[in-house]
Amino acid sequence: MISRVLSAELSEHAGRRVTIAGWVHRRRHLKTVSFLVVRDRAGLAQVVAGETHDGAGGGLPGEESVVRVTGTVIRRPQAPGGVELAEPEIEVLAEPGTPPPFDLYRPVVTASLPTVLDHAPVALRHPRLRAALEISAASVAGFRAALDRLGFTEIHTPKIVASATESGANVFGIDYFGRPAYLAQSPQFYKQAMVGVFERVYEVGPVFRAEPHDTVRHLAQYTSLDAELGFVTDHRDVMAVLREAVAGMVESVRHRAAAAAGLLGVALPEVPAEIPAVHFTEAQRLTSSSEPDLAPAQERWLSEWALREHGSEFLFVTGYPMSKRPFYTHPDPARPGSSNGFDLLFRGLELVTGGQRLHRYEDYTSALAALGEPIGPYEGYLQAFRYGMPPHGGFALGLERWTARLTGAANIRETTAFPRDLHRLSP
Amino acid sequence: MISRVLSAELSEHAGRRVTIAGWVHRRRHLKTVSFLVVRDRAGLAQVVAGETHDGAGGGLPGEESVVRVTGTVIRRPQAPGGVELAEPEIEVLAEPGTPPPFDLYRPVVTASLPTVLDHAPVALRHPRLRAALEISAASVAGFRAALDRLGFTEIHTPKIVASATESGANVFGIDYFGRPAYLAQSPQFYKQAMVGVFERVYEVGPVFRAEPHDTVRHLAQYTSLDAELGFVTDHRDVMAVLREAVAGMVESVRHRAAAAAGLLGVALPEVPAEIPAVHFTEAQRLTSSSEPDLAPAQERWLSEWALREHGSEFLFVTGYPMSKRPFYTHPDPARPGSSNGFDLLFRGLELVTGGQRLHRYEDYTSALAALGEPIGPYEGYLQAFRYGMPPHGGFALGLERWTARLTGAANIRETTAFPRDLHRLSP
Repeated sequence: MISRVLSAELSEHAGRRVTIAGWVHRRRHLKTVSFLVVRDRAGLAQVVAGETHDGAGGGLPGEESVVRVTGTVIRRPQAPGGVELAEPEIEVLAEPGTPPPFDLYRPVVTASLPTVLDHAPVALRHPRLRAALEISAASVAGFRAALDRLGFTEIHTPKIVASATESGANVFGIDYFGRPAYLAQSPQFYKQAMVGVFERVYEVGPVFRAEPHDTVRHLAQYTSLDAELGFVTDHRDVMAVLREAVAGMVESVRHRAAAAAGLLGVALPEVPAEIPAVHFTEAQRLTSSSEPDLAPAQERWLSEWALREHGSEFLFVTGYPMSKRPFYTHPDPARPGSSNGFDLLFRGLELVTGGQRLHRYEDYTSALAALGEPIGPYEGYLQAFRYGMPPHGGFALGLERWTARLTGAANIRETTAFPRDLHRLSP
Repeated sequence: MISRVLSAELSEHAGRRVTIAGWVHRRRHLKTVSFLVVRDRAGLAQVVAGETHDGAGGGLPGEESVVRVTGTVIRRPQAPGGVELAEPEIEVLAEPGTPPPFDLYRPVVTASLPTVLDHAPVALRHPRLRAALEISAASVAGFRAALDRLGFTEIHTPKIVASATESGANVFGIDYFGRPAYLAQSPQFYKQAMVGVFERVYEVGPVFRAEPHDTVRHLAQYTSLDAELGFVTDHRDVMAVLREAVAGMVESVRHRAAAAAGLLGVALPEVPAEIPAVHFTEAQRLTSSSEPDLAPAQERWLSEWALREHGSEFLFVTGYPMSKRPFYTHPDPARPGSSNGFDLLFRGLELVTGGQRLHRYEDYTSALAALGEPIGPYEGYLQAFRYGMPPHGGFALGLERWTARLTGAANIRETTAFPRDLHRLSP
């Protein structure tokens, strides 16, 4: 390994001669002195080139050059980290052929979103753009850690499926050895089947939606955080687990991505020990609506209400009408027409959909018959229920949507490295 | 949550009346007494039905019924866990409509592999089949933990790509909003680009190969454990990181999947502090071969040799000929024709492929020109190198292949829940 210390560790080496390595984040020429700011995975380090280079600094490598710099660590309060490297010997490991499409060293991103996305491999080096992905990675780690603690097992399920069952439309077709197949829109059926094996399972993986609309909220591929658990009494047990998962995500961002969260000014939410919940009919009453679903404006209003009334940035809406939930949703035995399905709203937007599922084979065949759907395409799915399944439920959380809510990103495309949408298939 | 104790915790409750829940793993009728063995996520628990049920035990629920059983915990050395539940009250939560296609309670799986795969949702409940997936989950957790400790960041990259670049053949085509697209065969280009952002990255995700051969070693979708890191001196730094990742996987199986490993009689390998390595030319000499690649029989021979000579079940083969490695492989500067690419053999089989990559833009354009390949389809990929990339390398490990080696599975289809292959697209 190229022997080096990281930028963030420099202050521990004051007075010593050390080597750092990274990218030239910025080259600055003053009258009698020149500076290099070197960026590595841990942050920034300032190198003062002094007069060892030719006065105007013309000999210093340009931005995005990959360098190894050996120098003496000097305390300098105004430098990043309170130290700088003096009397540098600079070795260029790789030279860029082209300057970046925008200045990576400016505190804000000056390029338009299409420019950023077209040049993702270099644009993501900008500390603010990178920060969103760090927060995303920390969130996933927290999700897994929370569920691991609760006895969940991680699974990996097929992304290529035989039938376009779950929502019919918006699936991508594949040529599968000459047969038609589809990209999975969710691991729903598989995670339910695996409750029969492990009782509690989760999967973090890509899901695919042939979303024909070009919006700031939709991607053709996103990362779904899915969980499913058996032996629940009803959907409230699922909500309790979801609360733990979200709390784990927040804690992980706090600990693993503190600098990134700080850079983006992320205000981490408090996750109440019990997240407040309103029944759908109450949500309708509060928003003076009689529609069978919540419009975005109502979700925003309810979020504000929850913050005002309960001091919570999270709000469960329970008891959605059966007519608006997928066929595998368990009805509320006490309220005809209502389901044991819920949404979790976070900062004005639906973040998670979940609920209790049907668990008896006959209930599935009845539900499909009521929809006029044939059993055939669901045979593989229904197998699990033929052989005895406990009451169970689960949820799915879109990672990019979570990161967008947390960072305040206006467009979900800012929260994933290489977005896919109606128009974008590269890089 | 249905209030219950897990089977594995029963012995802590001796003398008390407790509730368990799970599946009827086995129902046994003896002359004067009947037993239920209940299976939950933690193991098995024995329930003695005595004469509270009708003598012949006819009133007891059948195999795979989902039950909740309240009973008194009695010490009984010959029962699983040394305790059993007496004076049971049994509640059936769900009844199977069909008996399983084979007996799940027999110690070995009596069904053929096609029967197992056709009935995966119920077959995987068999403790031996489930065990392989537990080992797989524990391995992934260990991989992530090891790389997290080394400062790696987790990434999620596109599974839908614009061109079939990496190997040309064996890609699945997609209809992407009316345009042709392909399923990604690996995250290779994306993980390299992300070295420019995070220096050290990993991804655990599905990759897709339209493998037209029906073998015991190939799947159309498998889970790839990918890592890539910058600021390496050469491939040996990559090998050192891979050693840590594999050691983390072994340790995690030891701690998180001990029961599963025990059930399958898995002998966990020792991972030497430094895994022995032979150069390709030496491997040729040892196996008296002059072919430019290693045949399976040679890999087996070399593995046995490493065990004999070095006491290691792992062996690196380094310096593969450039002609046999992908175009992005870094040549060995000291040996014309040799690469800085390596394989890791484990128990007779190639488990990991990795190496140092090219990092200069001109080296990529030259390599593509030498192959007679146009630059066009690689434009997005090559972007990263235009803007300055450090010396870097990485590796990819197939999760199912690893689990198969560890468990001794004869067919890789036994190591994934719902395999996809030339003929199989469901369940």
